[in-house]
Amino acid sequence: MKVWSKKGEDVPKEVEAYLSGEDILLDQELVFWDALGSIAHAKVLAKAGALSPGESEKLIVGLKKIIALHKQGKFELKEELEDVHANIEAFLTEDLGDLGKKLHTGRSRNDQVALDLALYSKWELLGVCTKTAQLCSKIISLSKKHDCPMPGYTHSRKAMVSSVSHWLLAYCEALLEDLELSLAIIESLGKSPLGAGASFGSVIPLDRELSAKELGFNSIYLNTLNAVGSRGKTTKFVLFALSSIMQDLSAFSSSLILYSDDSHGFVSLPRSYCTGSSIMPHKSNPDCLELIRAKSAKLLGLEVSVAATMHALPLGYHRDLQETKGALMKGFGIAKASLEIMEGIVSGLKIDEKACSSACTSEMCLADFATKMSLEGIPFRDAYRDAKISDPKYSYLLDPKKNVSLKTLPGGPGDKLMGKKLEGMLAELEKKVNSKKHYLESSIKKLSGTSP
Amino acid sequence: MKVWSKKGEDVPKEVEAYLSGEDILLDQELVFWDALGSIAHAKVLAKAGALSPGESEKLIVGLKKIIALHKQGKFELKEELEDVHANIEAFLTEDLGDLGKKLHTGRSRNDQVALDLALYSKWELLGVCTKTAQLCSKIISLSKKHDCPMPGYTHSRKAMVSSVSHWLLAYCEALLEDLELSLAIIESLGKSPLGAGASFGSVIPLDRELSAKELGFNSIYLNTLNAVGSRGKTTKFVLFALSSIMQDLSAFSSSLILYSDDSHGFVSLPRSYCTGSSIMPHKSNPDCLELIRAKSAKLLGLEVSVAATMHALPLGYHRDLQETKGALMKGFGIAKASLEIMEGIVSGLKIDEKACSSACTSEMCLADFATKMSLEGIPFRDAYRDAKISDPKYSYLLDPKKNVSLKTLPGGPGDKLMGKKLEGMLAELEKKVNSKKHYLESSIKKLSGTSP
Amino acid sequence: MKVWSKKGEDVPKEVEAYLSGEDILLDQELVFWDALGSIAHAKVLAKAGALSPGESEKLIVGLKKIIALHKQGKFELKEELEDVHANIEAFLTEDLGDLGKKLHTGRSRNDQVALDLALYSKWELLGVCTKTAQLCSKIISLSKKHDCPMPGYTHSRKAMVSSVSHWLLAYCEALLEDLELSLAIIESLGKSPLGAGASFGSVIPLDRELSAKELGFNSIYLNTLNAVGSRGKTTKFVLFALSSIMQDLSAFSSSLILYSDDSHGFVSLPRSYCTGSSIMPHKSNPDCLELIRAKSAKLLGLEVSVAATMHALPLGYHRDLQETKGALMKGFGIAKASLEIMEGIVSGLKIDEKACSSACTSEMCLADFATKMSLEGIPFRDAYRDAKISDPKYSYLLDPKKNVSLKTLPGGPGDKLMGKKLEGMLAELEKKVNSKKHYLESSIKKLSGTSP
Amino acid sequence: MKVWSKKGEDVPKEVEAYLSGEDILLDQELVFWDALGSIAHAKVLAKAGALSPGESEKLIVGLKKIIALHKQGKFELKEELEDVHANIEAFLTEDLGDLGKKLHTGRSRNDQVALDLALYSKWELLGVCTKTAQLCSKIISLSKKHDCPMPGYTHSRKAMVSSVSHWLLAYCEALLEDLELSLAIIESLGKSPLGAGASFGSVIPLDRELSAKELGFNSIYLNTLNAVGSRGKTTKFVLFALSSIMQDLSAFSSSLILYSDDSHGFVSLPRSYCTGSSIMPHKSNPDCLELIRAKSAKLLGLEVSVAATMHALPLGYHRDLQETKGALMKGFGIAKASLEIMEGIVSGLKIDEKACSSACTSEMCLADFATKMSLEGIPFRDAYRDAKISDPKYSYLLDPKKNVSLKTLPGGPGDKLMGKKLEGMLAELEKKVNSKKHYLESSIKKLSGTSP
Repeated sequence: MKVWSKKGEDVPKEVEAYLSGEDILLDQELVFWDALGSIAHAKVLAKAGALSPGESEKLIVGLKKIIALHKQGKFELKEELEDVHANIEAFLTEDLGDLGKKLHTGRSRNDQVALDLALYSKWELLGVCTKTAQLCSKIISLSKKHDCPMPGYTHSRKAMVSSVSHWLLAYCEALLEDLELSLAIIESLGKSPLGAGASFGSVIPLDRELSAKELGFNSIYLNTLNAVGSRGKTTKFVLFALSSIMQDLSAFSSSLILYSDDSHGFVSLPRSYCTGSSIMPHKSNPDCLELIRAKSAKLLGLEVSVAATMHALPLGYHRDLQETKGALMKGFGIAKASLEIMEGIVSGLKIDEKACSSACTSEMCLADFATKMSLEGIPFRDAYRDAKISDPKYSYLLDPKKNVSLKTLPGGPGDKLMGKKLEGMLAELEKKVNSKKHYLESSIKKLSGTSP
Repeated sequence: MKVWSKKGEDVPKEVEAYLSGEDILLDQELVFWDALGSIAHAKVLAKAGALSPGESEKLIVGLKKIIALHKQGKFELKEELEDVHANIEAFLTEDLGDLGKKLHTGRSRNDQVALDLALYSKWELLGVCTKTAQLCSKIISLSKKHDCPMPGYTHSRKAMVSSVSHWLLAYCEALLEDLELSLAIIESLGKSPLGAGASFGSVIPLDRELSAKELGFNSIYLNTLNAVGSRGKTTKFVLFALSSIMQDLSAFSSSLILYSDDSHGFVSLPRSYCTGSSIMPHKSNPDCLELIRAKSAKLLGLEVSVAATMHALPLGYHRDLQETKGALMKGFGIAKASLEIMEGIVSGLKIDEKACSSACTSEMCLADFATKMSLEGIPFRDAYRDAKISDPKYSYLLDPKKNVSLKTLPGGPGDKLMGKKLEGMLAELEKKVNSKKHYLESSIKKLSGTSP
Repeated sequence: MKVWSKKGEDVPKEVEAYLSGEDILLDQELVFWDALGSIAHAKVLAKAGALSPGESEKLIVGLKKIIALHKQGKFELKEELEDVHANIEAFLTEDLGDLGKKLHTGRSRNDQVALDLALYSKWELLGVCTKTAQLCSKIISLSKKHDCPMPGYTHSRKAMVSSVSHWLLAYCEALLEDLELSLAIIESLGKSPLGAGASFGSVIPLDRELSAKELGFNSIYLNTLNAVGSRGKTTKFVLFALSSIMQDLSAFSSSLILYSDDSHGFVSLPRSYCTGSSIMPHKSNPDCLELIRAKSAKLLGLEVSVAATMHALPLGYHRDLQETKGALMKGFGIAKASLEIMEGIVSGLKIDEKACSSACTSEMCLADFATKMSLEGIPFRDAYRDAKISDPKYSYLLDPKKNVSLKTLPGGPGDKLMGKKLEGMLAELEKKVNSKKHYLESSIKKLSGTSP
Repeated sequence: MKVWSKKGEDVPKEVEAYLSGEDILLDQELVFWDALGSIAHAKVLAKAGALSPGESEKLIVGLKKIIALHKQGKFELKEELEDVHANIEAFLTEDLGDLGKKLHTGRSRNDQVALDLALYSKWELLGVCTKTAQLCSKIISLSKKHDCPMPGYTHSRKAMVSSVSHWLLAYCEALLEDLELSLAIIESLGKSPLGAGASFGSVIPLDRELSAKELGFNSIYLNTLNAVGSRGKTTKFVLFALSSIMQDLSAFSSSLILYSDDSHGFVSLPRSYCTGSSIMPHKSNPDCLELIRAKSAKLLGLEVSVAATMHALPLGYHRDLQETKGALMKGFGIAKASLEIMEGIVSGLKIDEKACSSACTSEMCLADFATKMSLEGIPFRDAYRDAKISDPKYSYLLDPKKNVSLKTLPGGPGDKLMGKKLEGMLAELEKKVNSKKHYLESSIKKLSGTSP
């Protein structure tokens, strides 16, 4: 029985499967958030006079019961009830009788799901930020131990002398940029859609600011049509933040696969993150890194599916939007697991300093020769043409260690402060993440008595 | 002759075309920014002792000459010199002799192009913000004139009574969200790559903070490998901001195409933005709106091409990145033109209030009936089943005007403050845009004596 | 324990989950195909002298046992064994002792999975062809009952008089094109990878042509590196065929959503494929059609994920490819379910002939007026400008029925033979599908004694 | 003045630029095809009695004049006339007076552009097939000279001993598969849309089969709505064929970049396809290969833009489709140039046989040891665990040359017939391409007196 079914009318099984099939599984992730949003709604309904204070309280008790059951893994959603919203209403109606049927006053599943996803996304993205920060911290730690020279590449060709820490910290800075983007995206999830109803508000004067505040939002959507219709956009925003992280993890993976291969041997991967072959006994394959790379492509696919879903649709609710829920949740799953795996790999990474250093060849110093010549008045373009490795004047540059130690300009391979500066940035960003998390969590606890 | 060519060695014509073909045309857009960055670099070289103060000054005069020529459309790039960087170096060498050959000390085309694109992107994206704000302002103006009722749709079906201003302002709020995203992306373009060289810095102690400050950046990239390698990512960020705008313009276009069609007739499009048919004399087709919609799909394609280009590449410079330049520039072209076209359309839009109002049917009020019943104690779920249009008690809700006037909750179709609030948000965002623009422009003027 | 694990060595749980998590669930779909391929391999090993005839026979009996268990739902894959291949080997080793350990001679999981997916894809794609044909047949049936006039649209605007059958059969022809593409893609799946091993063949002279023939392939891959490496490409081919179907279903869905809306009312959708609203009692929403549309966007996302996964990877085996398996299987799931749902909708579609006919307006005939005028010697371009609805000479064209009856040119709205011709094409394509299916199925039965 | 403009009415400049801007440049590519289609249409109009034989002949003479002018680069399209179709009509009207205004009878720009693009695509795709065949031929030639051993890789790790010819011919087989796909796609372009008009045919009994035959098509579209509406789909089909080629070129590029790097050195690239650095004098960068790789990502972006453009649009003409024209043409430009560049690179490729051979390590033979052991009755899984490089019994396998010579199974690294077999396949496919090309070209010549 659906909430909208007239007597005797229901959809055939195969249609039900098509409509709710995967979706009801995904909704399992939303139980907490849906119940939480309903608690806030019950309060607002009381304030609006649509529920008595006692009724509101009873509903809240019922909703807390659902949260408790859910935490014990005992609140399973029934496909024939379509979705998490109807399942919760059905539970309350069974538990509290007619009172349960009152909760849906002044709202619709359209604003409910928008609310659930906003809360869920904010919480999950904060978690992703924390994991990203942890990975950055591991990279910085590793970099501190390895300031030895290694070849720097451009166009996949040996270019100039660089250092291991320089190579590693490039990925750290990149990930911090992603972290900053994620924080900006979290900011964009700061508006509450609750009270938007089907898209057109309600004849009841719901106090939307109140529920927004109680749920830890900064403000409300100023237009209810956009509140419901923006769901595709916010999903795209979140996936973009995740895919930015995955893109950098993927680049890091490619670099690690290359530098750990037979012909470079700069690093060796922790054995427990590699697998063997079914026929070649000697193999140790970088499967985890290959999968990180592939999963970043998968995230791109998810982004495209969401963007294409919205193409040519006017703003508003369309059932099409349901398909973006899976993309969002898969995106989080991919990003969280990949960050953890990469953290494990970085933690177990072994650097072969000798291999790194001895791979530096003398021609990689020619640009430095030319630069030094230019300091003596020879126009750079001429120095570029005339620089010779055999020139004894600059032979001190050929020693990789010495070479690196001369590139101390900020950001360079010999910049000894780089790790510290990045650590500073990391600390600052972590503080922002924690403060947002704390604010959200304490709002949630105040409402529901518990954490997500 | 390429800057790197040894005597007598050069690439065949068809290879040259493959390498530089479209790129040299795109580089025409970068002349100003490349010359500007070179001015800052000349100053830094002087400070580092690689140029005498007089040399630095002469180079700056030469670079300003290039800017002046460029503004008169007289600085045309030669394909055989490969790119904007080599063209400028060649000009200076012709103009100033050996001195021209000195400018490339301590840098590479890799950090140069990263710098050019960061400056260009920031400037252009600020321009896009301004255009977005202008469109929002036009939408708000129009909405103020039309608070009449119109049908609200969900699932492309008549749902509840809404209003014209509610419909229009949904797109306004959506575009303001895009504007906020653009501002966040502009923030992420705040780091200077100059001095990163090929990716590994330089043996000269370049004062990167100085050039960053002079060029209006907030700070420098803390790692030179990332400074060069992040180019693909920042391009993706910018395209994402643009595509978010285009997605909302596309949704608005779809809505306008639908509401102006033969069966709705809620709005009529300005004739000068429509075209006719070659065989059907009566046709007036919404071509501009259709093209906006299609161009939003094009932007998605550009995003994908950039994301896929980077896939599986380690951080660093690869020639692959060159292909992302066209995507970036096409993206800006599409967004700017589409915003202008949409502004023109909104300015000329005619609302048929009578058609809007008379399209509201009585069953669209059933949800309101049920809500009102629920205020009298009937559980909403029961009211939902029992509500009847014929019930005289709620017949006042059937008058569309009256109905809208009851939905005054914040964000609803009858919320009289919505336009004001959005206007407030718009003003705040515009202030931020203008302040950033002012800061950047004054930095530029100080360096180059002129505006972009 | 993995097949490649040395004593005591194994991957941590979270790594195992990252590596095999979803994949082992997907592999469940491959049990039959993997066992089937193994039967063929056992025969080839016997011929090569690597197994005695008796050993080969025993292994085949064991493999048939697995197939039988699988059909009863009793062959469940264990995650700790990594994949379907290792699970089957483990079962055989338990069942047959040391003999089970012999089956992997001369092959690798790389060619095994390529084989499994080729067989699976061919079989599933043939099934999709059949479903597509069934849908076409339903469309043709419906079109036969409705040759009444209806408006034809271009640019979402009323253009010229058309007919219901013309509208419906456009989708039929489009789907037949997709069916033809699917047949071409099935042809491209005609090469057997078995015997390619890890990618570099084997020191055993395996008779690859023999196993190819027994498994119903046309030929073998001529290069073993390509045999293994082409897996991503064939997946992309298959997804392209599926997405072509989905794109046409999506277009049809959009058309049906539009024509069944409040303002057109040309068709009404079968109630059991629609859903209601949780707050608006009057709603009947076209959810199934909206989901078909969204799922076509999802397929595009899957295509992109597969294409991006392969980007920049040299031909060969990379673990990255594993991630394409889910895309393939999800693609089939989406296409099959969507075809069934659309078939149900077409079967229950009601056409409101009166609404269709009366929506035809007189200006839609102006192009016909001009054409008729041009037959009398007035240059078309002048006729186009001068045609007037009030011209009594051509007023017979204003009757929609008459109008359609004059457009009998092949392919036009009045072409009475169109249904027949499409039926002819459909029959021809179905014959091809059935012949391929029959050939494959009889090969399979001969090998395994049963059908997939 | 547009063909549809009423007196004094025209679109503003900026709107014109938005509508026709890039499009009119693209249309330049269609002049020949549009004139050719018009010749066929003039014949059909004569047969239908809409033109006298003399009129038809005069129009054909005028159209041939346009073709001649176009071939001399003297037929330039005017933006204010919107498109190629209107430009040709305007020329004829100026040339032939009122007669020029008669040509548009019974057709529309909608079927015209569909026709132009079908002809253009078929011709261009045949050209791409020829270039692909040429590249394959070059690869086979090179492979014949190099049957020496080289390491075979899986997971980017040394796996088993392979051979240079094996590596090269993998890409040849892959490209032949792409060629086969292109042929199938050419087949799908075999239906003529001419006579479909705006989408709904015409009241004139046009002989569509006649024009189809004269233009070299196999048949006509059986439904005129689909004839016009399928344009997006056929564009997607063509781009898919091109992107399949580009994907394999990209994989080949990645392989060549890797094998020519400092740490492998298996191959060296022709110097004229590489470039240098602006600051590092020693660099020789594989820019052409990097761009091939990036352009394959661009093609994926074009595919996505076309697919997304069509999303959620009902079948029929929408101006949105215009944007797919650029994607199609850019796709051809990319594929043709990339095939040529790759052919040049393969022609100049130098193989370092010694480096290839000496990179083969002994552990790469362990799987062969185990296989040999299994032939002596040791279960493979046990042999896999027990195989030891030090085992003298199999030490002959350690010699890379000997090792390759034992892998003679069809498709393996020692298969001496592989080149021949692929040559045979290539010859067969080339024959098909040539026969299609010949048929099309002779039809064209018969109609227009000249070749495209």
